Amino acid sequence: MDDTENSAASAAQRSFLSIGLLGFGTVGAHVYRLLQDETLVAARAGVSLRVKKIAVLHPAKARPVEVPPAIFTTDPSEIVASPDVDIVVELIGGLEPAHRLVLEAIERGKAVVTANKQLMATHGPELLGKAETVGVELGFEGSVGGGIPLIKPIRESLAAARIRAVTAILNGTTNYILTRMAAEGWTFEAALTAAQRQGFAEADPREDIEGHDAAAKLAILASAAFGCQVTNDDVYREGIASITPKDIAFAKELGFAIKLLAIARSQDGEIEARVHPALVPLNHPLATVADEFNAVLVDGPGLGPVIFSGRGAGGAPTAVAVVGDLVAIGTRLRLGFRGRPGGVHLVPMRVRPIEEVVLPCYLSLQVIDRPGVFARVASVFGDEQVSIASIVQKSRGAVADVVLVTHDAPERAVRRVLARLREMDVVKAIPTVIRVEATI
Amino acid sequence: MDDTENSAASAAQRSFLSIGLLGFGTVGAHVYRLLQDETLVAARAGVSLRVKKIAVLHPAKARPVEVPPAIFTTDPSEIVASPDVDIVVELIGGLEPAHRLVLEAIERGKAVVTANKQLMATHGPELLGKAETVGVELGFEGSVGGGIPLIKPIRESLAAARIRAVTAILNGTTNYILTRMAAEGWTFEAALTAAQRQGFAEADPREDIEGHDAAAKLAILASAAFGCQVTNDDVYREGIASITPKDIAFAKELGFAIKLLAIARSQDGEIEARVHPALVPLNHPLATVADEFNAVLVDGPGLGPVIFSGRGAGGAPTAVAVVGDLVAIGTRLRLGFRGRPGGVHLVPMRVRPIEEVVLPCYLSLQVIDRPGVFARVASVFGDEQVSIASIVQKSRGAVADVVLVTHDAPERAVRRVLARLREMDVVKAIPTVIRVEATI
Repeated sequence: MDDTENSAASAAQRSFLSIGLLGFGTVGAHVYRLLQDETLVAARAGVSLRVKKIAVLHPAKARPVEVPPAIFTTDPSEIVASPDVDIVVELIGGLEPAHRLVLEAIERGKAVVTANKQLMATHGPELLGKAETVGVELGFEGSVGGGIPLIKPIRESLAAARIRAVTAILNGTTNYILTRMAAEGWTFEAALTAAQRQGFAEADPREDIEGHDAAAKLAILASAAFGCQVTNDDVYREGIASITPKDIAFAKELGFAIKLLAIARSQDGEIEARVHPALVPLNHPLATVADEFNAVLVDGPGLGPVIFSGRGAGGAPTAVAVVGDLVAIGTRLRLGFRGRPGGVHLVPMRVRPIEEVVLPCYLSLQVIDRPGVFARVASVFGDEQVSIASIVQKSRGAVADVVLVTHDAPERAVRRVLARLREMDVVKAIPTVIRVEATI
Repeated sequence: MDDTENSAASAAQRSFLSIGLLGFGTVGAHVYRLLQDETLVAARAGVSLRVKKIAVLHPAKARPVEVPPAIFTTDPSEIVASPDVDIVVELIGGLEPAHRLVLEAIERGKAVVTANKQLMATHGPELLGKAETVGVELGFEGSVGGGIPLIKPIRESLAAARIRAVTAILNGTTNYILTRMAAEGWTFEAALTAAQRQGFAEADPREDIEGHDAAAKLAILASAAFGCQVTNDDVYREGIASITPKDIAFAKELGFAIKLLAIARSQDGEIEARVHPALVPLNHPLATVADEFNAVLVDGPGLGPVIFSGRGAGGAPTAVAVVGDLVAIGTRLRLGFRGRPGGVHLVPMRVRPIEEVVLPCYLSLQVIDRPGVFARVASVFGDEQVSIASIVQKSRGAVADVVLVTHDAPERAVRRVLARLREMDVVKAIPTVIRVEATI
């Protein structure tokens, strides 16, 4: 731990702090640019933050921002090991070598700032635990929600809120797609193509539309909100590819919008963590979050809903989050502060399997349109103790669309209903089952 | 400064920190209750926060929470002067003696947390300057927006955002009134009575409806966002009492909602700070903020709009904000941290007088309905270089309602137009002039 002591002691005596960047893509270039604005950053941090080294694969590559060539290195370990670097900013992305480098930087007593969602969603509990042990800070505001302040407000400002639930729209691509489907009546495929044309969706959109991106962000937020060890593997996940314009139209008729929600809830010492399409009442604050916008609703007893929203991605906003972390850490390093500013000791908590979750459910079925069918279908729900809250039936000749919303029911019971419906000859198809999120 | 050194040194060695409360109303009782939950607060702060003394006028009065009687004192100076108190929480409200007591606590080297909007809006620059000089923290998250985290996210997380504007709905009472007027077609008076019945408005509602409350909150937010010395006297202010159901209906026809906005904007080293009714486009994120909710939209280049919203008042949420400040300060005191965590050096900035503000404007006039009148009215606008963006005319027999929205125009020019219109015999009345806030 000699390095640690040296680095802290020397930082306290310097009029500036040295930053080492690992990676120099879009976010990195914006971070570099923001740090050049001395009046902005130094005034807030009370100390200059100077980029000393940048590790990149190709130093000769053209960059969107002018950087002295001598600053580049191809060896990230050089930055992590350098006694001259006070704070390491990890912007490589992905798991390795980011994970190994961040861990090493922490072990050497350096403060670390990262915008790496995958890293924090997978190794967050390990890295935060290590940072706590060593007594350095690990900032990761940029890993979720771009420039929307989330981690620190949730962990610090709302420390006393006994947060009960975090209900969020965390993926701009899928929210754009669902917004367009609702507004234009487009199919999922047409809306995806439009999103790709607008630059809101990748050529390979699976990360977004299958919910992986939202699940990783939810793991990070849940850890912050409940102080528990949740990783992306703990998050139940369903994507939006099976949502049809008909579902959206039926849902609207029943007073709901369809959103891809990321939900973490704390109850009786256990947590729920799930990402799936959900019906939300049209007057719910998340129902009107449109296009590529993200929103995070935090709820606790005596707090009421508090909502954070904005564009949840982009190089420039993410750089604002990274530099915000740098300013906070820089201020404290300048004043000789050592140790995490509290609240990072994450404890293990049981994550409730989806089968145990109790929610209302929306189902759309196609049944043969003849007398007695409806009663037979309804009796299956009754047998399984799933009670029906509302129902819309639309005859289309030989078959009828039946759309129904249940009251609160255990997922397990709903699955039993579905299994039995699938075996009935009068039920031609069960195109969609979507959970309902009615509480604010 | 001996007291200062003692208090900091002793705090660093203790396993708990002592809190002294000045005042014990609704917020105080909630703060006390939250601090009793050791698992919650100690886990986050890494240190127990214990209420040692509470200054009240009437120690014998019945309280909503059980407190050992020995804890009460009738002398707030005793708490401020006590070497056993590490953090003073000011919940008396109003200007004096709160101002004197907070100043004395800071001078004695104590950290201070306050939820006192009036105090911070009036004496914020002085108190923050003093805290910076002495090297103690002054938390005031609870002074604006109840439990919505605003001050720290704006000042710390968005430190690098170069915030251009803060556009907000900061008063729940007036937003409730305007929402009810729009939804039910009620007059201002009817909506105010409903708000009073619902407990959203005071018996004497002037503080809210004349915009004083919002102006004070805006002064605090503007100081945080721009690092400048703004007090409530610097804020231009207009209330909502003159808004009619007809204005709301006309505005809707033109695609706008009417909200009481609080706007602070930074431009060319000067700032605008104003509270007044404004037309906002129906698709503006603030247009759908309903009932008693508050929302704060922060905007900066490369950041995009970031919105914080929730219920902006109430004892329980405000207590969450106060305890959030206590946890953050407690953590740092425990670790021996001295000094403000950056960014509080407020500089003076010129506040632009309302006459210099350039905005579109909504005007509704009643004119005599005969040929040529319209051209005469329009020519006045032309003469004063105020160009008209849209117009709705509705004949009602002898007189016609003319509603128009201008393009961007200096307030000064609009006032010249109004003066000339008022002198024209064909103009029977100019019931309303409302500014338009179209940018997001």
